Amino acid sequence: MRLQHATWQEVEAYLQHATGIILPIGSTEQHGPNGLVGTDAICPEAIAWELGEREGVLVGPTLSLGMAQHHLAFPGSISLRPSTLIALVRDTVVSLGRHGFTHVFFLNGHGGNIATLSAAYAEVYAEQSMGYASPLASLNLTTHNWFAGPRVRELAQALYGNAEGSHATASEVSLSWYACPQAVKQVAMSPTVAPVGSAQCHAEAFRRRFPDGRMGSNPALASVEHGRRFLEAGVDDAWEAYQAFIGQA
Amino acid sequence: MRLQHATWQEVEAYLQHATGIILPIGSTEQHGPNGLVGTDAICPEAIAWELGEREGVLVGPTLSLGMAQHHLAFPGSISLRPSTLIALVRDTVVSLGRHGFTHVFFLNGHGGNIATLSAAYAEVYAEQSMGYASPLASLNLTTHNWFAGPRVRELAQALYGNAEGSHATASEVSLSWYACPQAVKQVAMSPTVAPVGSAQCHAEAFRRRFPDGRMGSNPALASVEHGRRFLEAGVDDAWEAYQAFIGQA
Amino acid sequence: MRLQHATWQEVEAYLQHATGIILPIGSTEQHGPNGLVGTDAICPEAIAWELGEREGVLVGPTLSLGMAQHHLAFPGSISLRPSTLIALVRDTVVSLGRHGFTHVFFLNGHGGNIATLSAAYAEVYAEQSMGYASPLASLNLTTHNWFAGPRVRELAQALYGNAEGSHATASEVSLSWYACPQAVKQVAMSPTVAPVGSAQCHAEAFRRRFPDGRMGSNPALASVEHGRRFLEAGVDDAWEAYQAFIGQA
Amino acid sequence: MRLQHATWQEVEAYLQHATGIILPIGSTEQHGPNGLVGTDAICPEAIAWELGEREGVLVGPTLSLGMAQHHLAFPGSISLRPSTLIALVRDTVVSLGRHGFTHVFFLNGHGGNIATLSAAYAEVYAEQSMGYASPLASLNLTTHNWFAGPRVRELAQALYGNAEGSHATASEVSLSWYACPQAVKQVAMSPTVAPVGSAQCHAEAFRRRFPDGRMGSNPALASVEHGRRFLEAGVDDAWEAYQAFIGQA
Amino acid sequence: MRLQHATWQEVEAYLQHATGIILPIGSTEQHGPNGLVGTDAICPEAIAWELGEREGVLVGPTLSLGMAQHHLAFPGSISLRPSTLIALVRDTVVSLGRHGFTHVFFLNGHGGNIATLSAAYAEVYAEQSMGYASPLASLNLTTHNWFAGPRVRELAQALYGNAEGSHATASEVSLSWYACPQAVKQVAMSPTVAPVGSAQCHAEAFRRRFPDGRMGSNPALASVEHGRRFLEAGVDDAWEAYQAFIGQA
Amino acid sequence: MRLQHATWQEVEAYLQHATGIILPIGSTEQHGPNGLVGTDAICPEAIAWELGEREGVLVGPTLSLGMAQHHLAFPGSISLRPSTLIALVRDTVVSLGRHGFTHVFFLNGHGGNIATLSAAYAEVYAEQSMGYASPLASLNLTTHNWFAGPRVRELAQALYGNAEGSHATASEVSLSWYACPQAVKQVAMSPTVAPVGSAQCHAEAFRRRFPDGRMGSNPALASVEHGRRFLEAGVDDAWEAYQAFIGQA
Repeated sequence: MRLQHATWQEVEAYLQHATGIILPIGSTEQHGPNGLVGTDAICPEAIAWELGEREGVLVGPTLSLGMAQHHLAFPGSISLRPSTLIALVRDTVVSLGRHGFTHVFFLNGHGGNIATLSAAYAEVYAEQSMGYASPLASLNLTTHNWFAGPRVRELAQALYGNAEGSHATASEVSLSWYACPQAVKQVAMSPTVAPVGSAQCHAEAFRRRFPDGRMGSNPALASVEHGRRFLEAGVDDAWEAYQAFIGQA
Repeated sequence: MRLQHATWQEVEAYLQHATGIILPIGSTEQHGPNGLVGTDAICPEAIAWELGEREGVLVGPTLSLGMAQHHLAFPGSISLRPSTLIALVRDTVVSLGRHGFTHVFFLNGHGGNIATLSAAYAEVYAEQSMGYASPLASLNLTTHNWFAGPRVRELAQALYGNAEGSHATASEVSLSWYACPQAVKQVAMSPTVAPVGSAQCHAEAFRRRFPDGRMGSNPALASVEHGRRFLEAGVDDAWEAYQAFIGQA
Repeated sequence: MRLQHATWQEVEAYLQHATGIILPIGSTEQHGPNGLVGTDAICPEAIAWELGEREGVLVGPTLSLGMAQHHLAFPGSISLRPSTLIALVRDTVVSLGRHGFTHVFFLNGHGGNIATLSAAYAEVYAEQSMGYASPLASLNLTTHNWFAGPRVRELAQALYGNAEGSHATASEVSLSWYACPQAVKQVAMSPTVAPVGSAQCHAEAFRRRFPDGRMGSNPALASVEHGRRFLEAGVDDAWEAYQAFIGQA
Repeated sequence: MRLQHATWQEVEAYLQHATGIILPIGSTEQHGPNGLVGTDAICPEAIAWELGEREGVLVGPTLSLGMAQHHLAFPGSISLRPSTLIALVRDTVVSLGRHGFTHVFFLNGHGGNIATLSAAYAEVYAEQSMGYASPLASLNLTTHNWFAGPRVRELAQALYGNAEGSHATASEVSLSWYACPQAVKQVAMSPTVAPVGSAQCHAEAFRRRFPDGRMGSNPALASVEHGRRFLEAGVDDAWEAYQAFIGQA
Repeated sequence: MRLQHATWQEVEAYLQHATGIILPIGSTEQHGPNGLVGTDAICPEAIAWELGEREGVLVGPTLSLGMAQHHLAFPGSISLRPSTLIALVRDTVVSLGRHGFTHVFFLNGHGGNIATLSAAYAEVYAEQSMGYASPLASLNLTTHNWFAGPRVRELAQALYGNAEGSHATASEVSLSWYACPQAVKQVAMSPTVAPVGSAQCHAEAFRRRFPDGRMGSNPALASVEHGRRFLEAGVDDAWEAYQAFIGQA
Repeated sequence: MRLQHATWQEVEAYLQHATGIILPIGSTEQHGPNGLVGTDAICPEAIAWELGEREGVLVGPTLSLGMAQHHLAFPGSISLRPSTLIALVRDTVVSLGRHGFTHVFFLNGHGGNIATLSAAYAEVYAEQSMGYASPLASLNLTTHNWFAGPRVRELAQALYGNAEGSHATASEVSLSWYACPQAVKQVAMSPTVAPVGSAQCHAEAFRRRFPDGRMGSNPALASVEHGRRFLEAGVDDAWEAYQAFIGQA
């Protein structure tokens, strides 16, 4: 069930039997010569919608903006500062906690979000840990990175080996194409496999290190059919992780 | 053109001939017995996507969360605090200004966002007005409320008269249903037309004033066909407003 | 009764029978060639003091600084950022709520404050709406713009018609002169009626659009005697609005 | 010259020959049984206005709210948090620095403001000290506490000796009465001289320590005639301090 | 060389030939029945001081407070909120960047700091990435977790195997005892090896999961002699990481 | 007892009979030609450790960073902005209050911290004073400046007279040398006694006023033996102040 398509009475009914929710979160940033700016939001959204339909889990609105400061030297990238993303997550989960949700599962599509999401959860927990009366006493927060799930990793290794890379990867490009087949682009890559390195730097340094935006990847290997398989793997990984999370008190 | 479906090279090419962008912004909040929680994001998104396709304007990711504190007593509503929304808007437009965008047109679907968006623009402008060197010197920001455009208002008056109301209106429910026909709901309304009043209060007071979430409206009058007409009216209103905005230096 | 001239015991006694308070709020900003930098604070202060005396309503200290970033290219203008004004309003109303005040009526003299004041109220309400125990549970906040009251608007229309304009207007100059007759200035205006346009921009753009600071007005039409009549109209408008506000729970 | 009564062209002319400005700053807080809630703003305002007129120094709007958290258990007291006051001071002096003011002289009436004002100046200076290009390079900021000037202290000692105390003092009550003779109150004090102690505590503790709000004082000794003498002493002290400050680069 | 023991002229001389600095960062939090509250600061400090002496690298003051909200249900634990730690790191590295330092190497002793440190670096980088002129253009920031270095991990595995655990580990207890031999405590552990689980929760949940504060460890295996070997391994790991970091532009 | 060397069970036991704690706080900043960058932290730390041992008072971790923006033109100085230091102090004392500590005694070594510490305490108190339920209801906060204690002042006057000065003083250099005898430096001073003046300015102005960093002092008079005497005087002053503080409710 998608929250965006529900009425408040339907949410009220859902809360009678379940108190977990999935929030897809991504980023709006360059993904190399043939990857979409929206890749990091499109991928977890596709997985979340499919999972929500199959298993009857509520899926909230996709958060399309993330922490992408290192990509800002490429046109079209938009970044929140970590402090802004922390505030955004805080208000979102406080709102959900207010209604009785106890488990918020961030289905994440962007490696650059991981640290700030973790900091955001600590910011929320700290309020209660510091001794304040809080409406958040039973709130549990976690991140599931779809691209790091065991089935997804196995599939990427099988299909691409070392050419998978770590940004603008063939796996995420495949999945985004499967979700948005009208946006498939055929672009030659040069070099075939992009250079590797660290992304912990400012935007100018990032662009110097990774001139066309890719990190260690060859997304020319991507295909819509691969995307279909990544969706299946991603849904299975996420469902497994979600069930384990919901069991946690 | 949708930013989410573009590569960074395509954005770079767009910036050679145009420096305006449309950002749909909504809210995630109750919309009465037959309205969708996502109504305020779905409506401007539908208009922006259609306009972007017709006129070749770049459309950024939809910002689905807004300032909705007064709706928080209804399950499913999520609100950002005004201070959080200001930070979110600031980072977004700074990122865009960094790439050379000069006109950011927020296509807004939620009345509760209007004041905070205006405050956010002032927060951004103030930086430069206070004498700091800034990458934002040529940035122009505006809000277009699709529901307040002249053609939309005329149509709503013609179709619903006083039963249009001001929240969970028949016009927005119609448009959201046209965009998401699978989510049409038939629900009886009691009373037929909801009470009127002020929404400037906290969530508990709001729910006391508006028990089922509607304000002055009878959304049982909504239909998918009406939604089609609202889309046309909304696109025309938005295009007119966008062109006037782009002409401003 | 003016809070500034009361002892705390007198405030305590007032709270036995009334829990509303009026706070004049303005701005410190250029008002064209013959208008005072303090106009936006002087006008609501004059109305509030007169109303307070006639009707026995408590009037708090005048907040002379507002959101005036667009005026900063004119010497003497001082602006708070919206985020600062939100914090200022928040602390003020929390302090008042702590004492048992339930209705805070901001008598506003500056159009540029309206959006930020609305955002500030939402910031205060959100705390409680998000589920936190709060000392503010029964706090009501509103803005009354003296210049937009029905009697004031009618008088301005009758006296100045289209030459009233929207900033450095003849009506506000008149009222400020009546309140501060020693500060009356006779200055020739060129052009007679200033250009019109939008004030949603940064300070340099504002000054380019409105070279002497006026927006659409001819304040050479102002007079002390007009000011006396605006005070009467303003007091009646404010009293009507205040009574309606106090009746709201 | 009062900024509130000037036009922007008059401020522009002033800046041709002088770049200093006086800002009265006070607090809105209880001042014992016969002292006014506005005492701390009224006193420096009276001195600033007199000094401004005598010496032709520009005087900005009075900042009537200060850091008064310890007084909040007494009705009518309003406090800014230190973080809010820092933001307020920052925006104010940045606005002034933008116009070319180089020396901002806070004429302060409230002991509780001293530390936060000092912190606020450091917050402003730090921006530049940390290596950022800043429009504030030549800005100088200082606090002059009128109640601590040598002539004022000598007069208070001569008139009241140990019964002067440190809050709701006979000297400040006298000066506020001279400025607002209509607000003189005759109230019996019990005990005659209030207890002494520390004000660094929260509001409940403060009220326990100082049941009627006075600290070590006997303001029943105050008179309008004393107030006239404190005004003279205060103007002379402030003028001396202002001249020394203006000489500093 | 320790910054705390240097004069500013000695720092100036150091900057002539080197622009890197090591900052030990830890936490103040419970470390089980025989571990010290200061463990996480003591360990990286010991390594940093030894490394600084051997290799002539400048070592800054130890930051003893970190992000430890999950430990707050155990007496003595002190936590910064992530937002506070971000501000602290930001000001620290801006100060260092101002002097010409180009590489700041956080030698970290606390797993709970990792995410927030990463967010803090992004917050600093974002300023420049968003297009602002910045004194930080050549600043590089990294975290080295002493407990995750290859030599340290190998030694812990050899000495303790699975009884090493993840909090209040035998390795960190050993190193802290070697650094502070006067603080060695002999305490019986029950159970011998503590339970395992996730630390991403609030303080009450953490204490329920880990009743004596240990996570998966048996620190009764710790010894001063082991600590000496961990110091050696830790210095070698850190030096290797530092050299790689300094080589990065 | 040092918190860093205690287990949580030892802290729990301490809290059974005492609820006060000493926190040494300093700064990392230039101290002239022969003074250490760490002087302001080393001195209160030495006094706190000695006092903690003699009297059994718990001593927390040393906070080595303070408000030192005016020293930033000298290499090695690190400053927190006042807003950051306020957040740091707030989180620290909230954490301690959560455990049941009622009296936090900041043993301060840096004049530049005094105002911001006072503002920080007010920020903490304000939360409760504004009417919020708080875990901090019985928290008391104070600053003791070791360099301003009566015995220390008397000794400095006896040893150095007017050559003591106000920054990089012979007394603090002596005490830091006694604590760190390996860091004694013999440097010629020119002029013998440094110029005097105000430190309330930005870093460039400070360095212009005080070219080698000293303010009014001749630290060539310092000696390790003097340091021993300052430690004794400082411990006695601090103990007296601590006992008075603990007696305050």
